[in-house]
Amino acid sequence: MKRKKAPKKSARPVQNLELPTWQSKATLARLLSRIEARDLTLRKTLLPALAKASGNARTVGITGPPGVGKSTMIASLVGHLRKAGKTVAVLAVDPSSPFTGGALLGDRVRMQEYALDAGVFIRSSGTRGHTGGVALSTRECLMALDAAGFDVVLVESAGVGQTEWDIRKLVQTTVVLLGPESGDGIQLMKAGLMEIADVFVVNKADLPGSDRLLAELRAWVEGGAGGGHWIPPALPVQAQAGRGMEELWKALETHAKFLTESPTGRDRQRDARRLELLEILEERLAERLSILWKSAKARKVAADLTDRVIDPYAAADRLERLLPRT
Amino acid sequence: MKRKKAPKKSARPVQNLELPTWQSKATLARLLSRIEARDLTLRKTLLPALAKASGNARTVGITGPPGVGKSTMIASLVGHLRKAGKTVAVLAVDPSSPFTGGALLGDRVRMQEYALDAGVFIRSSGTRGHTGGVALSTRECLMALDAAGFDVVLVESAGVGQTEWDIRKLVQTTVVLLGPESGDGIQLMKAGLMEIADVFVVNKADLPGSDRLLAELRAWVEGGAGGGHWIPPALPVQAQAGRGMEELWKALETHAKFLTESPTGRDRQRDARRLELLEILEERLAERLSILWKSAKARKVAADLTDRVIDPYAAADRLERLLPRT
Repeated sequence: MKRKKAPKKSARPVQNLELPTWQSKATLARLLSRIEARDLTLRKTLLPALAKASGNARTVGITGPPGVGKSTMIASLVGHLRKAGKTVAVLAVDPSSPFTGGALLGDRVRMQEYALDAGVFIRSSGTRGHTGGVALSTRECLMALDAAGFDVVLVESAGVGQTEWDIRKLVQTTVVLLGPESGDGIQLMKAGLMEIADVFVVNKADLPGSDRLLAELRAWVEGGAGGGHWIPPALPVQAQAGRGMEELWKALETHAKFLTESPTGRDRQRDARRLELLEILEERLAERLSILWKSAKARKVAADLTDRVIDPYAAADRLERLLPRT
Repeated sequence: MKRKKAPKKSARPVQNLELPTWQSKATLARLLSRIEARDLTLRKTLLPALAKASGNARTVGITGPPGVGKSTMIASLVGHLRKAGKTVAVLAVDPSSPFTGGALLGDRVRMQEYALDAGVFIRSSGTRGHTGGVALSTRECLMALDAAGFDVVLVESAGVGQTEWDIRKLVQTTVVLLGPESGDGIQLMKAGLMEIADVFVVNKADLPGSDRLLAELRAWVEGGAGGGHWIPPALPVQAQAGRGMEELWKALETHAKFLTESPTGRDRQRDARRLELLEILEERLAERLSILWKSAKARKVAADLTDRVIDPYAAADRLERLLPRT
């Protein structure tokens, strides 16, 4: 039952293929909005072009428990990078309720001081209901910022649950920010924050408890040393006062070197590229399923399921046979 | 290029179709292990049979921030239900690191007192790397426990990130357990715990701060009242002392009645059934992708991608055309 005729697309105007640049914030913002809205017209034209133009930015994810001072540290790091003449984009993946779709934009407000700096671009991206969807649109936004020519792209995510794992897959380096109030090692392990760090940063390093946390982190990473693996450093900072940013950036540079120069680092970059491919495929399949789901035939199957004429597995069998090809 | 020949399956011995019963814990435990291992031989035979046999258990999800006393409250609720002559299964979906695959089994240990009670079955299920995978295997475990004839199935999940949303889709009623130390409403909203509750329970109700939290929760739910929606009650308990369990069970019974008797409740059950179908389909597609991913042709595409001969979107185009049919 394959359709042989090619769909009539020739009448449609050719997609505008202008690539975004960091100098044009409005164009860039519009593009990110289209990406987040999962605008499918981007797929055949602009996304492959962005993929080709990207790969030059230094991408860093910054995560940590709520309230630890991520936004403050990012503001501080942005300041340091600006002084060094680098352009910086910040993509804040906010924790948001899958129920309301809303996002708490406080972090964005705190970054307002950079609103007039042409070399800084800040974007707050509400996460959507589905984890996979978040990752994919964040990936494409990151790719767009990279292709736009920013020297550094920082991705801020809340260290709760799955999000930081999704982010880790998208960036070269993951910074986990903790504070003396973040709890002990057991709690951090439970929160899943220990294994994702390439660099640990302890904020509010002047407060009691931070030295003990630093010692605990260093003891923990030594347990995983060897085999050519990267050993995450643990650095003290005082984000509010801007202290420790130079050391942090140096640690990030060392990790960048590890990624390009060591076999383990190169393997990780290769795996990331393959994962990207897999996720693109997954989204395409999800789309096919979504098209099928809206069809009259699928509605009939769903009605039979609701009426308990068939069980969910029999219903799945029927729908699977109806699934459209590419 | 469709294969016309039916696959030769007749030589294989017919799958043992004995359904699990709550009386046979060892059989049940083995079945759950096979489900968690994603044993595909279950799919054609046992899963549809389980689907037909299930639908009689009262299923309740219990979530909340780490350390709030979920396991203690569950132990206490189990005690109350046992006294009322009900059989109970507890499925603990532990927070686990996607990196190590390990799970912290402390909760399970705390439930040991019920190990010798024939009417109680406790299972700790480590969550796997992928959120979707968790939900599906938990769904099937829940279905197996339901089909086995337990009167009540309690699902415990850590209230961090995505997991509790996954659980909410699987159970009839979701209990969110909080404590006076859980923080204020803003923090709870950030943690995404407010919208998923059908019943709020405040543990350690004898401690200062619990009255204020109860008042805050009640004010919050009233904001969402109207339109035939369920208004989540907020109940004080002292789980350690076993206080408040009768009131909690009554609230759960009221919610069960709402689900079967109100139009909104019935809609919710219908939507849950459709979502289940969609998730079964999603897993099947993921499997097809996984088969393709291991093929020699896919390895060639991945190699071209690694060598940057093609970009990820071109690679996805090529793989999409190679995707096997059912």
